Amino acid sequence: MIHLTLIGIGTGNPNHVTGQAIRAMNAADLILLPLKGDDKADLAGLRMAICRANLTNPSTRIAPFDLPTRDPATPDYLTRVNDWHDTIAALWRAEIEKHLAQGGGPNVALLVWGDPSLYDSTLRIADRVAGHLPLTLSVIPGITAIQALCAAHAIPLNDLAKPVVITTGRQLRSSGWPQDADTVVIMLDSGAAFDALPPEGIHIWWGAYVGMEEQILIQGPLAQVAETIRTTRAKARADHGWIMDIYLMRRTAQPSA
Amino acid sequence: MIHLTLIGIGTGNPNHVTGQAIRAMNAADLILLPLKGDDKADLAGLRMAICRANLTNPSTRIAPFDLPTRDPATPDYLTRVNDWHDTIAALWRAEIEKHLAQGGGPNVALLVWGDPSLYDSTLRIADRVAGHLPLTLSVIPGITAIQALCAAHAIPLNDLAKPVVITTGRQLRSSGWPQDADTVVIMLDSGAAFDALPPEGIHIWWGAYVGMEEQILIQGPLAQVAETIRTTRAKARADHGWIMDIYLMRRTAQPSA
Ligand SMILES: C[S@@+](CC[C@H](N)C(=O)[O-])C[C@H]1O[C@@H](n2cnc3c(N)ncnc32)[C@H](O)[C@@H]1O
Ligand SMILES: C[S@@+](CC[C@H](N)C(=O)[O-])C[C@H]1O[C@@H](n2cnc3c(N)ncnc32)[C@H](O)[C@@H]1O
Repeated sequence: MIHLTLIGIGTGNPNHVTGQAIRAMNAADLILLPLKGDDKADLAGLRMAICRANLTNPSTRIAPFDLPTRDPATPDYLTRVNDWHDTIAALWRAEIEKHLAQGGGPNVALLVWGDPSLYDSTLRIADRVAGHLPLTLSVIPGITAIQALCAAHAIPLNDLAKPVVITTGRQLRSSGWPQDADTVVIMLDSGAAFDALPPEGIHIWWGAYVGMEEQILIQGPLAQVAETIRTTRAKARADHGWIMDIYLMRRTAQPSA
Repeated sequence: MIHLTLIGIGTGNPNHVTGQAIRAMNAADLILLPLKGDDKADLAGLRMAICRANLTNPSTRIAPFDLPTRDPATPDYLTRVNDWHDTIAALWRAEIEKHLAQGGGPNVALLVWGDPSLYDSTLRIADRVAGHLPLTLSVIPGITAIQALCAAHAIPLNDLAKPVVITTGRQLRSSGWPQDADTVVIMLDSGAAFDALPPEGIHIWWGAYVGMEEQILIQGPLAQVAETIRTTRAKARADHGWIMDIYLMRRTAQPSA
């Protein structure tokens, strides 16, 4: 029986790692460390640094492995993602089986960016692995990019007792401002999805590389700062070769119908 | 100039505290520790224990203080809450001014349950204090009850690339299932607001005292487990004298109109 622990490590600030995460890293016989191609060497190094900084158990083995990319030849988005998850699950299995064959212990951990529950595939991939290997699963929460953004701007997520919608750039472009809330958090935006909105009455708090050394924060009325965000984002992306950004928008409460 | 740091400490699991939070506690000259009446001695003790477990700086002073309750004589909800925040802000000021008068240093910290951005008034109260005392503000994120719930059940918050609504029991009762999402997280529910929904096609993951020793988890199709949750909640509440619970509900995607 394998014990698989998915460990949320926060979104780049090594001090956001929790005591529970550190303990779990040190209880692991094997730590799988996925390295993504798209964010280049910077983030791979950061993930590894967070792991190294907290690992005091000399017998824990770190197994970095390259994540494959999605197959652009598969036209349907969900199929493309599902195929990709299958491929990754097979990679995990191969790493775990190799480890066991070498006499490694049963505690396997996987480091997850931010929190494993939020816009992350690790839990879905773990389900696939569980279909092939006998395993028990546990999850250790981590600070999300949402918390990191709100903390960096020192703002509340919600208006007093009011709802919040968390969604993606793609969704904002296709559906516009959500019906249910005057606060929206946008993640996974490939670029300025706020352009899809009429900017009047909307305030935006934007952050890139939040919690990291490169952190950039911009906030203000959307009508005034949209252009600055666009150009800052483009420049930062060009400079670093990659970007991770997130934003919260709040609109003045609409008169109820 | 006073430096006020709002420190998220997670929602009851002392191991959810981050390294950044521990550092900030130990950098403080004064830690304000609000004790709430409604959750009785248990949580006051837990907050104090989390503080003590992480405090190694002998010169940091802990100042526990009783939070007042809202005035039930004020009929309007928002007015009642605003008045309450004014009262709390005045209490903070009094504690801080007393500390400074005794020659205390400028670093003041306040421990916040979970994350300071999520359904918490501390940032709003800090704004009021900033109107009367010269202060700089910083926020340290913490693990929220949402992350703790998802981790305990080992579930993702969102469906693949799909939106999520975070809202309150009151809002769910008054507005029903939100328009924008098939996943809803309910907090601040004074009791079984899910009763307001037709239960068909909804799966619920419920948790009380999540991350604490008393943790209770129930999940299943809402139609099958609603009654168990209601009775478990009532019993736990009676046994402990207080309860904190949260749940995530997901419905099978509705056919689009
Ligand atoms: C695949 S999701 C992973 C989210 C992660 N599990 C979490 O808990 O935040 C990646 C998205 O998270 C956001 N993100 C993650 N880290 C970030 C950071 N340090 N600064 C800004 N945005 C970040 C961006 O919106 C990015 O597109
Ligand atoms: C005033 S809000 C504070 C939320 C907190 N700031 C956070 O980040 O989770 C209190 C609500 O949070 C939820 N909550 C907080 N701690 C919890 C716990 N340990 N177990 C279950 N629910 C919890 C409940 O829904 C409760 O009504």
